[in-house]
Amino acid sequence: MPSQLTILVVEPDKTRAEAIIDSLAATGDHQIRVLAGHTGLARSVAEMNPDIVLVDVTNPSRDVIEELTLASSPLERPVAMFVDRSDDSITKAAIEAGVSAYVVDGLRADRIQPVMDAAIARFHMFSRMRAELEATKRALEERKIIDRAKGILMRARGLSEDEAYALIRKTAMSQGKKIAEVAQALVTASELLS
Amino acid sequence: MPSQLTILVVEPDKTRAEAIIDSLAATGDHQIRVLAGHTGLARSVAEMNPDIVLVDVTNPSRDVIEELTLASSPLERPVAMFVDRSDDSITKAAIEAGVSAYVVDGLRADRIQPVMDAAIARFHMFSRMRAELEATKRALEERKIIDRAKGILMRARGLSEDEAYALIRKTAMSQGKKIAEVAQALVTASELLS
Repeated sequence: MPSQLTILVVEPDKTRAEAIIDSLAATGDHQIRVLAGHTGLARSVAEMNPDIVLVDVTNPSRDVIEELTLASSPLERPVAMFVDRSDDSITKAAIEAGVSAYVVDGLRADRIQPVMDAAIARFHMFSRMRAELEATKRALEERKIIDRAKGILMRARGLSEDEAYALIRKTAMSQGKKIAEVAQALVTASELLS
Repeated sequence: MPSQLTILVVEPDKTRAEAIIDSLAATGDHQIRVLAGHTGLARSVAEMNPDIVLVDVTNPSRDVIEELTLASSPLERPVAMFVDRSDDSITKAAIEAGVSAYVVDGLRADRIQPVMDAAIARFHMFSRMRAELEATKRALEERKIIDRAKGILMRARGLSEDEAYALIRKTAMSQGKKIAEVAQALVTASELLS
């Protein structure tokens, strides 16, 4: 784990904020910004683009958790949330929204580093899986489009499957496009013309 | 969350084991089994098929974490692991192995329920994503196999693509098999015969 992180901390309590900063400073030369409230969180996240967001919430409600997770973009970066109490449904909402660590009644300065480690590890694992899922879905979609485009050419020009594919591929190469793009254009055009 | 869970607890310390049992008993009418050591964990997990496994580890090493995660099958059920200390690489190993909650220095009887809630929520979220990924990969693989089978029939019997697909589909229906199975059989046979 790098010892230099950009960390955004949301902590309304001044004493706790100082304890968190001291604890973080002991583990590396981090760049830390503290927000005292939720207002402006989304803007600060966008401006700072932090490596990790730590959010401390007293007395969380489902609305507050949803607002905070939305504002901190937990699919873009690790978000560790500390709450003083929770119930099953709030916990579930936070985790389903993508919060990488959700810690109930566990904000102690000396426990922040291990929670950050866990949040970062979980975020990367989850991101890899999301990327793999998206790539697989895209491959399947492209394959379907290419199949439809081949079928259109086979019918319209009396080509074999191999010839149809070769024609799409040749067009893509000569236009500097992807095979799937040319296939999509063909499918769209065919729908417009029929 | 159901108030009746089957819970397997791995806790070498007798006093802590009792505290955990008391804390769990306060939250529902659970069926609890305690293992004092790691030995036999895989067998106990297989026999009991618990809804969740709670593992307390003092002084964890990477080897111990790997052994424990393997034995508790964290892809089959939520596993919450409590360690007294950790470092970045051990934390990462546990999370990559699929542990649903990894808590450093946080085993307090009154914090077990929220950790269990979080572990269960995270496990379900992760399982859904894994299932979606597997289904998408399978759909892509099946599509590739069906494409190859169509190509084989088109060449061997001079069929159009639609006719080739219709023939595979008809064969599947008459044999009570899936289209992808018939396609796979055709591809295999064609490889054997060529």
